[in-house]
Amino acid sequence: MDAMARVEGALTTALSRMSGPGCPPRLAEAVRHAVFPGGSRLRPRLCLAVAAACGDDAPGLADATAAAIELLHCASLVHDDMPCFDNAEMRRGRASVHHAYGEPLALLVGDALIVVAFEQLARAGTAHPERIAPLLLMVGGSVGAPTGIIAGQAWECEDEINLSEYHQQKTGALFAAATMAGATAAGADPEAWRALGERLGEAYQVLDDIRDVAAKPEEIGKPTGQDRANDRPSAALQLGLAGAVRRLDELSAAAIAAIPDCPGQAALQAMIHQQVSSLLPKKLRRAA
Amino acid sequence: MDAMARVEGALTTALSRMSGPGCPPRLAEAVRHAVFPGGSRLRPRLCLAVAAACGDDAPGLADATAAAIELLHCASLVHDDMPCFDNAEMRRGRASVHHAYGEPLALLVGDALIVVAFEQLARAGTAHPERIAPLLLMVGGSVGAPTGIIAGQAWECEDEINLSEYHQQKTGALFAAATMAGATAAGADPEAWRALGERLGEAYQVLDDIRDVAAKPEEIGKPTGQDRANDRPSAALQLGLAGAVRRLDELSAAAIAAIPDCPGQAALQAMIHQQVSSLLPKKLRRAA
Repeated sequence: MDAMARVEGALTTALSRMSGPGCPPRLAEAVRHAVFPGGSRLRPRLCLAVAAACGDDAPGLADATAAAIELLHCASLVHDDMPCFDNAEMRRGRASVHHAYGEPLALLVGDALIVVAFEQLARAGTAHPERIAPLLLMVGGSVGAPTGIIAGQAWECEDEINLSEYHQQKTGALFAAATMAGATAAGADPEAWRALGERLGEAYQVLDDIRDVAAKPEEIGKPTGQDRANDRPSAALQLGLAGAVRRLDELSAAAIAAIPDCPGQAALQAMIHQQVSSLLPKKLRRAA
Repeated sequence: MDAMARVEGALTTALSRMSGPGCPPRLAEAVRHAVFPGGSRLRPRLCLAVAAACGDDAPGLADATAAAIELLHCASLVHDDMPCFDNAEMRRGRASVHHAYGEPLALLVGDALIVVAFEQLARAGTAHPERIAPLLLMVGGSVGAPTGIIAGQAWECEDEINLSEYHQQKTGALFAAATMAGATAAGADPEAWRALGERLGEAYQVLDDIRDVAAKPEEIGKPTGQDRANDRPSAALQLGLAGAVRRLDELSAAAIAAIPDCPGQAALQAMIHQQVSSLLPKKLRRAA
């Protein structure tokens, strides 16, 4: 099965219990709206690719880990889109959760996604109990405070922002968790995979800045020009578009160089090339 | 060490990493505001009491479990108080989190508390890896969807409310998790402790209804008369105050009768008597 099918299958499994007569039906519907159809599923595919490169001796656990990472990413999007933060009406080309279902349900959808992510890890981990705690701490650390997305987002509520912490926590941490947890799920040493995740997190941040400046809204499923409008730090605004693309190339090369020696090395390199290229705005893509 | 001191110590430990230069300082402050000073700490004390009755062979894990349950309870209070739900300005006798720190931070505080609760369980469970998954699923099920607090709260967003699910999910589930997880943390069979938790959950629901009608706001640290004002179901309004107190007595007796035979049975009985009595509005308390 290819990685995308594994990711979608694992997400479907994770949400399958959230239906039936005991669950408020609009909550179940809003949760599905937050998760399906997805975006590029970059992080969970990366997680599975690393697990595969490490031998993937526990594919069920790798699937659950990938799903947990994507569910937590979706949770952060739902809460970040809410009126008290970005007040974004669109996400992935359609209404954001609060815009479609109201603020109360959007609040609960984010909460429910966080909980089900950890439940899913625990459920899949029963066959490998010694891997659960490390996995959970790795994934938890990448979303919580003081080192994860929630801490990153909270810098927006401070008078003075710590920019390097902001980017590392808000974007880099979950990428690093994706590679490291992929290795851990397969029983391998996670530290060897940290650098790859961190470089990719930086590359993705630059890519996101480029898309905000150079993509069309319909290409990325959300309004563009938000960084300038909200006076946010942006590599594309600081370095210019060409400079940002050069920076992206450097970071992608650094990420690829950071892949440890392993049987799946070539496949991982190809995947990273392909993903970075497919996420570039159409007009900036080069022939392969 | 008495149970209250253990609970406060475990909560302090859980939040100790959420400070230092990497963590946005207002987030760290708002998280502490949500957790300290606490209320009655009913659920975590119950959890520790059951762990003690079961031999408490892993006190560090019992402490972390109790803390996780209280942190998840605090998270639900922070999010329920937000303007899109109860819009409550007061909690535990002072400003609610969003009233003191704004909506964006209140949203993030709830999220951070959910994550740190699971992290804490994982961290303490490394010495007992085979207990982590059952504990996590028990605690997760009591807060997530379809069986926990989040599902319960989401009934408020439906056109038709399922009242028995609403109460069981919103109040009962976390009490049942407190007793069952207390047993699990100590390596005992959780099923034997389910009935005690469920009965106590029902008793607490009635107690809460009584307090809303008969307590003074300064006694319970929040406005009273909310059930009538918001047209919420209430045992005190349906049965009258005397009827509700009789119902509470019945439920407390049923809870006490549900305590399994164990060395700590008498201590548990005494604790439940004492807690129910101490939470009754002053004018309704009887001499012991």
